Amino acid sequence: MEFKAEDIAKFLNGEVVGNPQVTVNNVSKIEEGKAGTLAFLANPKYESYIYESEASVILVNSDFFPKREVKATLIKVADAYQAFASLLTMYEQARANLRTGIEQPSFVHESAVIGEKIYVGAFAYISRNVRLGNRVKIYPQVFVGENVVIGDDTILYPGVKIYNDCKIGSRCIVHAGAVIGADGFGFAPQDDGSYRKIPQIGNVILEDDVEVGANTTIDCSTMGSTIIRKGVKLDNLIQIAHNCEVGENTVIAAQAGIAGSSKVGKNCRLGGQVGIAGHLTIRDNVQIGAQAGIMKDVQNGEILLGSPAVDLKQSMRISAILKNLPQLRHDLMELQRDMKKISAQKADE
Amino acid sequence: MEFKAEDIAKFLNGEVVGNPQVTVNNVSKIEEGKAGTLAFLANPKYESYIYESEASVILVNSDFFPKREVKATLIKVADAYQAFASLLTMYEQARANLRTGIEQPSFVHESAVIGEKIYVGAFAYISRNVRLGNRVKIYPQVFVGENVVIGDDTILYPGVKIYNDCKIGSRCIVHAGAVIGADGFGFAPQDDGSYRKIPQIGNVILEDDVEVGANTTIDCSTMGSTIIRKGVKLDNLIQIAHNCEVGENTVIAAQAGIAGSSKVGKNCRLGGQVGIAGHLTIRDNVQIGAQAGIMKDVQNGEILLGSPAVDLKQSMRISAILKNLPQLRHDLMELQRDMKKISAQKADE
Amino acid sequence: MEFKAEDIAKFLNGEVVGNPQVTVNNVSKIEEGKAGTLAFLANPKYESYIYESEASVILVNSDFFPKREVKATLIKVADAYQAFASLLTMYEQARANLRTGIEQPSFVHESAVIGEKIYVGAFAYISRNVRLGNRVKIYPQVFVGENVVIGDDTILYPGVKIYNDCKIGSRCIVHAGAVIGADGFGFAPQDDGSYRKIPQIGNVILEDDVEVGANTTIDCSTMGSTIIRKGVKLDNLIQIAHNCEVGENTVIAAQAGIAGSSKVGKNCRLGGQVGIAGHLTIRDNVQIGAQAGIMKDVQNGEILLGSPAVDLKQSMRISAILKNLPQLRHDLMELQRDMKKISAQKADE
Repeated sequence: MEFKAEDIAKFLNGEVVGNPQVTVNNVSKIEEGKAGTLAFLANPKYESYIYESEASVILVNSDFFPKREVKATLIKVADAYQAFASLLTMYEQARANLRTGIEQPSFVHESAVIGEKIYVGAFAYISRNVRLGNRVKIYPQVFVGENVVIGDDTILYPGVKIYNDCKIGSRCIVHAGAVIGADGFGFAPQDDGSYRKIPQIGNVILEDDVEVGANTTIDCSTMGSTIIRKGVKLDNLIQIAHNCEVGENTVIAAQAGIAGSSKVGKNCRLGGQVGIAGHLTIRDNVQIGAQAGIMKDVQNGEILLGSPAVDLKQSMRISAILKNLPQLRHDLMELQRDMKKISAQKADE
Repeated sequence: MEFKAEDIAKFLNGEVVGNPQVTVNNVSKIEEGKAGTLAFLANPKYESYIYESEASVILVNSDFFPKREVKATLIKVADAYQAFASLLTMYEQARANLRTGIEQPSFVHESAVIGEKIYVGAFAYISRNVRLGNRVKIYPQVFVGENVVIGDDTILYPGVKIYNDCKIGSRCIVHAGAVIGADGFGFAPQDDGSYRKIPQIGNVILEDDVEVGANTTIDCSTMGSTIIRKGVKLDNLIQIAHNCEVGENTVIAAQAGIAGSSKVGKNCRLGGQVGIAGHLTIRDNVQIGAQAGIMKDVQNGEILLGSPAVDLKQSMRISAILKNLPQLRHDLMELQRDMKKISAQKADE
Repeated sequence: MEFKAEDIAKFLNGEVVGNPQVTVNNVSKIEEGKAGTLAFLANPKYESYIYESEASVILVNSDFFPKREVKATLIKVADAYQAFASLLTMYEQARANLRTGIEQPSFVHESAVIGEKIYVGAFAYISRNVRLGNRVKIYPQVFVGENVVIGDDTILYPGVKIYNDCKIGSRCIVHAGAVIGADGFGFAPQDDGSYRKIPQIGNVILEDDVEVGANTTIDCSTMGSTIIRKGVKLDNLIQIAHNCEVGENTVIAAQAGIAGSSKVGKNCRLGGQVGIAGHLTIRDNVQIGAQAGIMKDVQNGEILLGSPAVDLKQSMRISAILKNLPQLRHDLMELQRDMKKISAQKADE
């Protein structure tokens, strides 16, 4: 797709400075800009790049005036970064909208109820009693289990697996390979050392606007629901165990894991590879640093680090001392020698 | 599916107290019970819930006598929890048994030998010389490589991938996205800094009654077999490297990883995100806390924590001191000041 | 497939000692060798096994002379290990070459350009404008997005998912369930606590000779490319975030994670479960121990351990002291008591 500078300017309600007929067919970072691409300059810190960039069109803030000659056509807008982002979003949507209709061969059970303008890719499998909202996109090789309900405008990327009875909200995005609703890890120990499986007949609920990363796993509840609240963003390779709940607008980085029955509050941020033990309550606005291990409840607004995790400031103090632990030990041994000397002198007196 | 209280009682060999004609079509926790559901009360601690529950039928132990009025129909049984669990298991099986036959399109190589009453979902791929036992369930989009043997009653959930030559026992459950038998991570360093791949031509053996979680990976052996013994339960996103062996009835929580050629004994329990280095021997009945890092052999019955891991008691003592490390350092500095003072006095005397 | 000792010897340019007519149909470790298998002895440390092994044919170095009777037919070659490895590689290739042609049903968009002697398995999906090199093997249930380019001799194992616009080099191996090019984890916080998705329109580039483990995820760049350089080997369940770069011939063990925009140099080795924070630069020849947490830039050739990571020697010193922390604290308290006593005596004087 090719776009003229003047058309982009019209769409963004911006002003063209330079040749309005120049066309672009891709985007670039300003420092890597090549002919035929569109870039942006928002942060004055990077101004020097604009004089060297080969990008054909550059979005700038309306208060920007070049100090030297610029090769590119400029488009002046109220907020160059926002304008750029909205162009990208539009571009992505235009592209995604190329995927429509039901490709063959795919498997859509006759009892499934499907909305308007949906996409079902080849080799996707829609089980009995599934309900798909409008404009849902089911990419190839996705599996949707029995009785699953999926809201409007949700996207399931290739190979996503949704087990029976799960509920997925509207405008959710689930990336390739994610598994929603597999059995929780529950086993009753038997006298002979073996384990009997505890049936896991609950489900997973993703509320609206949830994003789930590639190969992330969210297990179903033993009974009832594992719940991921509105606006939660999960990165790749995360584990959410059975009976957990993650609160609104909480963001979790890659490879973190939450053990069974723990609840995480709203607006929290969990770093990569964080581990949260089972049956805990993490309240709202909590921040947990990468690789931390949480073994007890966390109060509102706490900032934690380390394994086992402690308060951020304390953790930094401890880390600083840890680095100097050999010196500390050396000092201690010196004191012991001094003390010995003094005690010997005393004995002599 | 709807069930009458009197039919459930007959099945469980229990006694109805209340209206035997009441029907249920789902289960619930007693504290969240709604009309039309079946709940149970096993632990006397939760007795108060029975007087408020809206559940239509509640299983209770035969020695339970309500102190106040109960709306629900009660069914008295020897062990309310076990009875509830067996109902769930039955319900799950009834539901799973709806999946039978070979759906189209699927790919079953003409040389494959398949048992009775199996299910092969659409878009599943069964390679050359595969042997499937009776009542095996292969969900959609599963891949089964050449010469793979799968025992009776085993379930492979959607998207499971089994590489060539692996052997899967009877009554195993492998969850969506798990990969069994991918190449072990073996490379020989070359003089120019590059690596030459060491062929990985072994396989993976899962013995009977093994459960493998979603997106877990178990690599094939370089030669011979990576072995997961009878009754092992693996959670989601676990990594088992080439040439490993995991002993009978060992249970491993999510995101743990075992490096190449390490052996874990029987009846062990490994916490989430545990890491075990390569070429180690972990003996039987070992317990390892979440996020621990194991860098040397572990003896029978040890309980370990921390990274690098130490004995549980020692680890707790160390953790307690670590939290107070700033105080410890402060005390040390105070001692140094005192010592300086004393030494100065001595010099003065 | 059966092979005669004399034919193997001819292929390896080796010399037969014993019966040249003996046949083998599989390989084994020398200590586990069974009749009908081929084993090797390279390390003199294991010489004793050769006198007990049941293997039918054993490769040995040309300077090896048995001290006792050996049942097996020996084949003497310049380097027994290398000879064995090259036999395995040949065997693997012969076997892989059984997979050719385009199986049905599969989905290959009419605009896709495909090379010679390729394999496309059933239920694989090749999108619009894809270009596949010669001898590429696409296993069943693989998804290849729009405009993806794949070089010669590359293998994508079952269920691999490649998002739009990614570039995969020649001779790459991507294992089952790996996801290449899913959206980077980028969200702009909004005033109401929710997050707006930042479009991720870049791609992933795998250069030549890269191997990617099962269920590993490599996210696309926000703009531009996430780059995995020539010869990199990635184990299973690894997370590489958006805008990262991994340098030539770097090797990363299972479950490690690299956060957004970090760069790792050439010839590095990262242990299992390592975490690298975002926006860091790790230079060349760096080694990082398992479970380490990297929170700042790393210089050429550093060897790091721990979380937060420190230099190897310092880390080992710290670990040693940590184990004895209870003793250290005890010594400190003893000193405090002694000091108190002395101060009391001073006051008395």
